[in-house]
Amino acid sequence: MNTFGNQFRLTTFGESHGPAVGGVIDGCPAGIVIDHTFIEHELQRRRDGDDNTPQGLTTRHEADHVEWLSGLIDNTTLGTPLSFIVRNTDCRPEDYEPFRHLCRPGHADYTYTAKYGLRDHRGGGRASGRETVARVVAGAVAKQILKVKGITFRSSHHDHEIHCIIEGVAAGMGNPIFDRLNARLSYAMLSIPSAMAFAMGDTPDAFRLSQQSFPDQWRHLGEGNTLTHTNHCGGIQGGISNGMPIIFHIGFHLPPTLPVEMNCRDAEGNLHTVPPQGRHDSNHLSRLPVIVEAMAALVILDMSLQQQTPHQP
Amino acid sequence: MNTFGNQFRLTTFGESHGPAVGGVIDGCPAGIVIDHTFIEHELQRRRDGDDNTPQGLTTRHEADHVEWLSGLIDNTTLGTPLSFIVRNTDCRPEDYEPFRHLCRPGHADYTYTAKYGLRDHRGGGRASGRETVARVVAGAVAKQILKVKGITFRSSHHDHEIHCIIEGVAAGMGNPIFDRLNARLSYAMLSIPSAMAFAMGDTPDAFRLSQQSFPDQWRHLGEGNTLTHTNHCGGIQGGISNGMPIIFHIGFHLPPTLPVEMNCRDAEGNLHTVPPQGRHDSNHLSRLPVIVEAMAALVILDMSLQQQTPHQP
Amino acid sequence: MNTFGNQFRLTTFGESHGPAVGGVIDGCPAGIVIDHTFIEHELQRRRDGDDNTPQGLTTRHEADHVEWLSGLIDNTTLGTPLSFIVRNTDCRPEDYEPFRHLCRPGHADYTYTAKYGLRDHRGGGRASGRETVARVVAGAVAKQILKVKGITFRSSHHDHEIHCIIEGVAAGMGNPIFDRLNARLSYAMLSIPSAMAFAMGDTPDAFRLSQQSFPDQWRHLGEGNTLTHTNHCGGIQGGISNGMPIIFHIGFHLPPTLPVEMNCRDAEGNLHTVPPQGRHDSNHLSRLPVIVEAMAALVILDMSLQQQTPHQP
Amino acid sequence: MNTFGNQFRLTTFGESHGPAVGGVIDGCPAGIVIDHTFIEHELQRRRDGDDNTPQGLTTRHEADHVEWLSGLIDNTTLGTPLSFIVRNTDCRPEDYEPFRHLCRPGHADYTYTAKYGLRDHRGGGRASGRETVARVVAGAVAKQILKVKGITFRSSHHDHEIHCIIEGVAAGMGNPIFDRLNARLSYAMLSIPSAMAFAMGDTPDAFRLSQQSFPDQWRHLGEGNTLTHTNHCGGIQGGISNGMPIIFHIGFHLPPTLPVEMNCRDAEGNLHTVPPQGRHDSNHLSRLPVIVEAMAALVILDMSLQQQTPHQP
Repeated sequence: MNTFGNQFRLTTFGESHGPAVGGVIDGCPAGIVIDHTFIEHELQRRRDGDDNTPQGLTTRHEADHVEWLSGLIDNTTLGTPLSFIVRNTDCRPEDYEPFRHLCRPGHADYTYTAKYGLRDHRGGGRASGRETVARVVAGAVAKQILKVKGITFRSSHHDHEIHCIIEGVAAGMGNPIFDRLNARLSYAMLSIPSAMAFAMGDTPDAFRLSQQSFPDQWRHLGEGNTLTHTNHCGGIQGGISNGMPIIFHIGFHLPPTLPVEMNCRDAEGNLHTVPPQGRHDSNHLSRLPVIVEAMAALVILDMSLQQQTPHQP
Repeated sequence: MNTFGNQFRLTTFGESHGPAVGGVIDGCPAGIVIDHTFIEHELQRRRDGDDNTPQGLTTRHEADHVEWLSGLIDNTTLGTPLSFIVRNTDCRPEDYEPFRHLCRPGHADYTYTAKYGLRDHRGGGRASGRETVARVVAGAVAKQILKVKGITFRSSHHDHEIHCIIEGVAAGMGNPIFDRLNARLSYAMLSIPSAMAFAMGDTPDAFRLSQQSFPDQWRHLGEGNTLTHTNHCGGIQGGISNGMPIIFHIGFHLPPTLPVEMNCRDAEGNLHTVPPQGRHDSNHLSRLPVIVEAMAALVILDMSLQQQTPHQP
Repeated sequence: MNTFGNQFRLTTFGESHGPAVGGVIDGCPAGIVIDHTFIEHELQRRRDGDDNTPQGLTTRHEADHVEWLSGLIDNTTLGTPLSFIVRNTDCRPEDYEPFRHLCRPGHADYTYTAKYGLRDHRGGGRASGRETVARVVAGAVAKQILKVKGITFRSSHHDHEIHCIIEGVAAGMGNPIFDRLNARLSYAMLSIPSAMAFAMGDTPDAFRLSQQSFPDQWRHLGEGNTLTHTNHCGGIQGGISNGMPIIFHIGFHLPPTLPVEMNCRDAEGNLHTVPPQGRHDSNHLSRLPVIVEAMAALVILDMSLQQQTPHQP
Repeated sequence: MNTFGNQFRLTTFGESHGPAVGGVIDGCPAGIVIDHTFIEHELQRRRDGDDNTPQGLTTRHEADHVEWLSGLIDNTTLGTPLSFIVRNTDCRPEDYEPFRHLCRPGHADYTYTAKYGLRDHRGGGRASGRETVARVVAGAVAKQILKVKGITFRSSHHDHEIHCIIEGVAAGMGNPIFDRLNARLSYAMLSIPSAMAFAMGDTPDAFRLSQQSFPDQWRHLGEGNTLTHTNHCGGIQGGISNGMPIIFHIGFHLPPTLPVEMNCRDAEGNLHTVPPQGRHDSNHLSRLPVIVEAMAALVILDMSLQQQTPHQP
């Protein structure tokens, strides 16, 4: 539910305007000296969009101070659960009072109420993008561990589509039939707020890509540096990595809260026009690359810890 | 790994040219009278593509006889594990002898060998589409249970894209943050052999859909029969169903085995041209709708068994 | 690993002399108004042993202030993860400096080092009984929810054995074959630090109990208030509750740290005599009942949330 | 539910008088040449009790022929799911007709009906000891793999108590806090039909053992061949193996079906005296050692596959 992964497991908690957001990482190998500078750098990448906030939007300015509560001695991982919290300092819950009994269009207000019978109306509560802070922290830890193994992540966004490239994954990662590497990646990416679509492969348009029926052709050894001439499959065959770069694309919808009036719905089904207020995640697209990479790193590290050395035939 | 689901769990087993494929369903509610006619009907939908096999391709003709081994008394589910096998009767393993030490392009031959140190070279082994027989049987059981609750599945394919519509799911299904209903569906769909892409929503082109930034607007109660005017979000908001039809799209690549010569790769990296032979899943696209629906049914039934009745505020 | 349960899941974190211990509860039903007074009462039961500390032992005096970080609005559960921390205020890590490179007999010092390559030498670190604070908090939440369903817990200790009685569990709880209710209870109890043995049934001596070969005989309806004349099976048959009180026993070893000199082992295998120092959990037996009840409550609530209403034959 | 383990996972299925019992093993390493002779040997150990059947009891005589359906090529594991079935050949379901609507004392008849609303009345159905055939097969595979790593299992029974010794497990196995090695073993052992009690340590009487408060004292390196002078803790400290032999005890109740009249209960709560009939598992105690070892092997192999190499301090 709020836990992702099997061997390297992240559990996140926290609402947007509650006391804190945070996470517990279980299964982190022992003996890792945590690179706090890198974690801060990743959190900064997540915040950077705020500087481009268009006129008329208010955004949240928080330092995102990470407090570590367990799992470390002399800044070195013990193998026990790493836990951390980031306090929500710049909260203005009163901004959300008008929405206490109203459901905004395009948000999770209606569905959370349907599921739980109540909801936290303050800034999206648990459904807010604020929760991704914990993913970025855990992703930074995972990236640090994977970097030593030569595995790196790179992603950028263009329009509403983001692509991500993972380099350095050796052939043999992935657990068919259901835990295919592409299925795990897709599962991870669709768990990101506002994610709508996922596609493997080296072509920007995922559904056109699939029409390229010819398979990636092998290169003769020595003919070039790579296994295949093309990478239409995105580095995964039969759910298992083939050693080529792993490439995939994700599609997101725009943030549904814009600085315009909204027609909200009350419990009886009546509509109410509400003027713009509260915080707006205007630049959430520019925040996404670091979140995408974090989720990809969680998948790759988790699967790498499950890997068994194959017998030699 | 080879198990899907939490409360309603399918474990599948079997290689394409081994003795049998089959499955174990754990968590099936007790007291269900199994509708074998419907299961046969679904298996027939999976086979129908074979009748359209283009000239020059050989295909497999099997009756797919389902033998039930446990979990039933007087054809009624006991609540204990349902298990079934389907024997592989029309095997010609000798057809695959040339591929024992060669990896075909676009197949899982290379990656299975990299992962496991050996592979079943006969017709794709575990990576073959043959394994989906077990998914279709389990999916038929799930559909039968869900139909009583008013939940139905419909899918069709156009070109290399398939879309699927699930109707009758009440608002409130889905487990944020990571087990969002859309994330579970994406995970399930990308586990289907040859699946490349997944997208939520009512527009054929997933990545263009995401550019429609305006959210689905609420309808006034009484104004119409549906909750929102449009269904761009595909019936899921914040990872939870909103009561609208659930709509998503999947992109597949064409079967990589065509009746043409293939350049295969040996363990030393040398290429060998091999004339066409073995079976060819020429019409796998026409087989896909029933498989897509089966996986969707496994997701929905599993999540519905996890649902708690919400407290009334 | 550090998570217990399937539907109602507790993840705990924290070392004895680190910044804090705490937990995340995932799957708690929404709409529960948390009874903080009861939680304090349970934590007080856990602490009470300290007042009986024999001369010569130092113990820890902490208020165990529970800080809730997420999952609540107006003190009511949202259905999202409940998280809480309890800061370790009365730490004296310097007391443990002599043990940095020494392994005490009867502790986890040696095995943690063998597993992780390093350990937190301050007061047992993760292996300390301090971690059970989080279990008691989560158990109190579970008990509160179960009490409304008429399920109550009672346990006491005599010598080094504790027994526990759970009343109010209806017939039908438990998931054969492997997740039998007795197997889950045993799993939970043996996870308590210093637990050595577990036995079902109404007789104090577990291994003698098993020699009573005659089964519990049915009572005629109306003949009495209970289902069977005796309760040798402890309320569970075939792994499923039968509606009788659930009774089991647990055996614990005494705390290995006594106020005497210890022979400790260094990394080279040499022995060193160390005078008594650090904290001593002298009364850990009197602390155990509330911990046993907490783990039992986690098992019962978890299983009750997984229960399906049986079909009527 | 019917699956045990995380990395090496056994799913079992089958009722006592249904078509077959069997299992699926997921996560078995690739490249293992299966030793069918050893599997037969283990199944023979499970059957041997039948030869000592006292007069007046009928027992089941089945060859227990194991049919392998998947996961093998040239008798070598592929890394894909191993599945096998054992057909129930010597069934006499008519013997159980009198019990269709009656619940025997000391059996799971009543509780299965309470849980599922119906049950398989033929010879215990799923609750029968027949299901343990699948555990023995999977356990034999696990033992074969572990033997190469120097890990062996030995158990015997005395009266109604069995003890088991596992030798060759290196220090460092076990996952605190909840997946302690002793907790996993206890969970596994209590899942065996008729198991009532579990205790760690080298003393026959588990609850007396716990009164031995003094910890196992370290041996000076060179002073002897073992780590500690005694092994009261049974080779596990803080939930992690210490390299000493792992020793534990299990208590079982006698089979509740004896060749005497039974007072059975109908759905209305009335009692009926029924003469002895059906099969009787008279010697189930002599069958238990191989089952105990099988479950122990499943635990140890599963945990060994999860082990990470510790960093060197």
